[in-house]
Amino acid sequence: MNTEKPQLGFIGAGLMGLPMALNLLRAGYPLTVWNRDGAKCAPLVAAGARQVATPLEVVAAAEVTFSMLADPAAALAVCFSPHGVIQGVGPGKAYVEMSTIDPETACKIGISVQARGALFLEAPVSGSTPQAQAGELVIMTAGDEALYHQIGDLLALLGKKHLYLGEVGAASSMKLAVNMLMGGMMAAFCEALTLVQTAGLDGQAFLEILAAGALAAPIFQAKGDKIRRADTATPQFPLKHMQKDLRLAVQLGDVHHVPLAVTAAANELYKRACQCGLEEADMAALFETLQARSLPGWGKPLGAFGKKR
Amino acid sequence: MNTEKPQLGFIGAGLMGLPMALNLLRAGYPLTVWNRDGAKCAPLVAAGARQVATPLEVVAAAEVTFSMLADPAAALAVCFSPHGVIQGVGPGKAYVEMSTIDPETACKIGISVQARGALFLEAPVSGSTPQAQAGELVIMTAGDEALYHQIGDLLALLGKKHLYLGEVGAASSMKLAVNMLMGGMMAAFCEALTLVQTAGLDGQAFLEILAAGALAAPIFQAKGDKIRRADTATPQFPLKHMQKDLRLAVQLGDVHHVPLAVTAAANELYKRACQCGLEEADMAALFETLQARSLPGWGKPLGAFGKKR
Amino acid sequence: MNTEKPQLGFIGAGLMGLPMALNLLRAGYPLTVWNRDGAKCAPLVAAGARQVATPLEVVAAAEVTFSMLADPAAALAVCFSPHGVIQGVGPGKAYVEMSTIDPETACKIGISVQARGALFLEAPVSGSTPQAQAGELVIMTAGDEALYHQIGDLLALLGKKHLYLGEVGAASSMKLAVNMLMGGMMAAFCEALTLVQTAGLDGQAFLEILAAGALAAPIFQAKGDKIRRADTATPQFPLKHMQKDLRLAVQLGDVHHVPLAVTAAANELYKRACQCGLEEADMAALFETLQARSLPGWGKPLGAFGKKR
Amino acid sequence: MNTEKPQLGFIGAGLMGLPMALNLLRAGYPLTVWNRDGAKCAPLVAAGARQVATPLEVVAAAEVTFSMLADPAAALAVCFSPHGVIQGVGPGKAYVEMSTIDPETACKIGISVQARGALFLEAPVSGSTPQAQAGELVIMTAGDEALYHQIGDLLALLGKKHLYLGEVGAASSMKLAVNMLMGGMMAAFCEALTLVQTAGLDGQAFLEILAAGALAAPIFQAKGDKIRRADTATPQFPLKHMQKDLRLAVQLGDVHHVPLAVTAAANELYKRACQCGLEEADMAALFETLQARSLPGWGKPLGAFGKKR
Repeated sequence: MNTEKPQLGFIGAGLMGLPMALNLLRAGYPLTVWNRDGAKCAPLVAAGARQVATPLEVVAAAEVTFSMLADPAAALAVCFSPHGVIQGVGPGKAYVEMSTIDPETACKIGISVQARGALFLEAPVSGSTPQAQAGELVIMTAGDEALYHQIGDLLALLGKKHLYLGEVGAASSMKLAVNMLMGGMMAAFCEALTLVQTAGLDGQAFLEILAAGALAAPIFQAKGDKIRRADTATPQFPLKHMQKDLRLAVQLGDVHHVPLAVTAAANELYKRACQCGLEEADMAALFETLQARSLPGWGKPLGAFGKKR
Repeated sequence: MNTEKPQLGFIGAGLMGLPMALNLLRAGYPLTVWNRDGAKCAPLVAAGARQVATPLEVVAAAEVTFSMLADPAAALAVCFSPHGVIQGVGPGKAYVEMSTIDPETACKIGISVQARGALFLEAPVSGSTPQAQAGELVIMTAGDEALYHQIGDLLALLGKKHLYLGEVGAASSMKLAVNMLMGGMMAAFCEALTLVQTAGLDGQAFLEILAAGALAAPIFQAKGDKIRRADTATPQFPLKHMQKDLRLAVQLGDVHHVPLAVTAAANELYKRACQCGLEEADMAALFETLQARSLPGWGKPLGAFGKKR
Repeated sequence: MNTEKPQLGFIGAGLMGLPMALNLLRAGYPLTVWNRDGAKCAPLVAAGARQVATPLEVVAAAEVTFSMLADPAAALAVCFSPHGVIQGVGPGKAYVEMSTIDPETACKIGISVQARGALFLEAPVSGSTPQAQAGELVIMTAGDEALYHQIGDLLALLGKKHLYLGEVGAASSMKLAVNMLMGGMMAAFCEALTLVQTAGLDGQAFLEILAAGALAAPIFQAKGDKIRRADTATPQFPLKHMQKDLRLAVQLGDVHHVPLAVTAAANELYKRACQCGLEEADMAALFETLQARSLPGWGKPLGAFGKKR
Repeated sequence: MNTEKPQLGFIGAGLMGLPMALNLLRAGYPLTVWNRDGAKCAPLVAAGARQVATPLEVVAAAEVTFSMLADPAAALAVCFSPHGVIQGVGPGKAYVEMSTIDPETACKIGISVQARGALFLEAPVSGSTPQAQAGELVIMTAGDEALYHQIGDLLALLGKKHLYLGEVGAASSMKLAVNMLMGGMMAAFCEALTLVQTAGLDGQAFLEILAAGALAAPIFQAKGDKIRRADTATPQFPLKHMQKDLRLAVQLGDVHHVPLAVTAAANELYKRACQCGLEEADMAALFETLQARSLPGWGKPLGAFGKKR
């Protein structure tokens, strides 16, 4: 990368994209931006970004363009619409897809970008808004390895860690494996917490013991606190997405003939929670599904840790 | 506690008891010790401890006696044998049972100690030899609350955290809930790692990603490393003990009518591993049970992470 | 067996014992009977039986005594109470324990009977009241093989099939294996029926298809009909007993290191049903636990098969 | 149906199609037949059928055409190839698809047939070759109800039972529910049989007890016998197809938010068997996967029931 900072592009100014783009701007990079709802670009323009009318104009202006969108459908629309990314990429340009998408979608976009002579990296992340703001995401990448090395400084502005994992599809698959473990851990955690409380033990003490030992994962404190505060109705990671990832993991296990008994059991618990109407709640609402049905308040957050009812 | 340091006793000089007793000696406490195999007391005697011939002599000499033994059978033998603990306890004395025992055994010992007019605390720990050496155990206690407060300085020498959880039995039950979560987490982890490798992804990268995010639990790095180094044959926590704890947790769930689908699925996986002859291996050997049977080397540690075989 | 019919004894005149004892009377055997609630013996006395005041008097009068009681506690009380069976047995006498009891209880009774010089057979049955009335039980036996052959004619009056399975304990274990399969089958059946109805298919057609093919087990028609008639509240086989048998089977699998993933999953479903307050309902009430919570009428029998709600 | 017997067509002369077509011929119906490997039609021609060169010629000659093919791919090829079924159907003609296909394929074919003005019925069956020969299949139908009633006599020649289930797709879905139950039952059966043998009980006695009671399903005797004769290598229903049906059922449960914990656990067991290389064996080979790995002969049929190894 030459001493003069290259022109960058950013597509998507949502909960994740906005703070990520701001981190690039703050580091002094010239940035062209687009968002479907243009109003959301205001904080970026205020910080020095140039707003344009189509994704095509972003890639036309930029050497490296990042996109961070809600789902595979949005990622595909931005690429393949008439004034989309594919129309603008070509030799000397690079496209970095950071949206959480499935391996098939990643391949579809990657092949089209590369067919135009441009470089492509799929780069899904672990972490949510606070990590995006702090530039502390974990970035899993796959695709053109030269591009991975070329933009190392930029990835370091967005995340505390980035890895190159191989051909397009590898990063999406890795993210699936991580989320699958998350789903299994959370299910085991909710079962243990339910047993703790039903046996008349103190849920808060359970969390403190976890925090001090070999099982100390940040998610237990975050989700345990959410359960304690009866705050599972406001999702950080919606339960239905957790169930979807478990379903996809079980299916990937089917493809590879890997038996996943614990993951499959967790998947059915989350399905049960969906059946109970908790699809849009936070994944921690799984806890509620494990409680006795006949409790007063069953189906609503329990409100507080404590001794057995 | 008066300014002059009280006489202490320690029963058990094994992998855990030895470093724990040394920590008390180093803090300047006069210590009387006993171990079934007396030779193992040598390092304690070298450090200033007085060795005696029976558990009875320990409690006779000490104001507060700790015991750290292998299992419930050893704990019961030390208490109820002719020259055992129960013969020596009485008003003004205290007995702190730190062995990992079930709630029933804890109650049996506790009731007998208290019937003699002495104070009792069950105090199982989280952590293994390195944490015992460093005085960084997590100590869960239940029983006489006054005793808990009285010996706070001593518990602080042995562990980085100690909690009081209620009546005798509560500490054993809490430890069971913690270990149940450990078993479920490790099963989900082994499934995810198997999927990662079978899908041709890099196991080491998977560990790095976990370490950087919300799922970062120390156990994943420790056990992942053990699997990578093909070192599951040397146990830190034997697989059969993990399965026993899962069985006890499922049974506790039976008592309280708490459905534990994920924990039960994990229990059957560990049973499968026992069926395959991995009882004495480390709990991380569960990973091997999930591999394809027809692999060259199936049933033996895989030796290294890497691309799909 | 000599041409003159031997004196028989029968202990227990409940839902099962009464029709069984009647079948012996109708075949012309002289019968001495006892029941804790003596009034229940009236139909037997009317049919020619002699009623006595204690179990001891039954065995004193009879060459072969059968007992059919509610549970292990009742079986033990009848044997070991001051005027119990053990006081009356001796050389030349035989005791046939037909109650459903665990292997440990069977061994306890068997050893005591044999120590007195009498013969012993444990003989639990498959089938419920209708089969008892029709003399169509399936009788699993274990213990003294000579006794098994000696009383073949009597067993043929009580059941359509009887087998000798080996040492005391074998019959109880076999019955556990049979009931474990029943629990797994019923859980799979309830899942399939729930899927059928939720997918908008006809539950009654599903039952008809099962009845015509390789899966045609009588239990599906009986329990399917119970579900259709919304009649699961009146138990034939209480759900809590089904869950208890699954728990014992999983524990037997623990002893033998046999992984039982499907049985363990079924056990957790029945535990869930117990948690929902369906312990005393028929085992078919498991179906209700699988329905969506937010359905109008959730937790109550659905009332009828039919298209999706 | 007029008194003169209508012209019929039959596509497919394999293990199932051949005996089914013969049953129609024996009842005196004029029959036009086609099979990809024409030589297989010889027995039909010998019995009076007219063999033609393309599926198109079959439907051109027949009022009602049945097809019974190996899988969805074959069913689609026969319909949509240049000289296929779709080219020949039209008003006054009917097409009855009896191959086991998924709901999507059924809809694809049904829509194309109906778009040409012809009538359509999907009609998958339960039962295998012996039932086909004896005309004792169970036929699940969906599609044009008038056609269902019109060909009732013909369906009665092929099966002992036929049902109409609703719109196209309903019959495939019902068959999936039936097979899902089969998979769960067989998994529970293999677990119980493994426990029986490992506990030192007699597997053959277990089968006899099942045959005499409420769990008596023909499949237990057939598959139990196959296991006893160490004959699981020759498939009646290949294990990989059983696993595929369980996978599809779990996915259908995902669509409808129906938790299927027992079915999912069974699915993972069959996946384990596939991982062990038993994909092409009979579904009863699941039994082998549950045995201890270190047994002499593990992975090969155990050869015989009997006492514990």
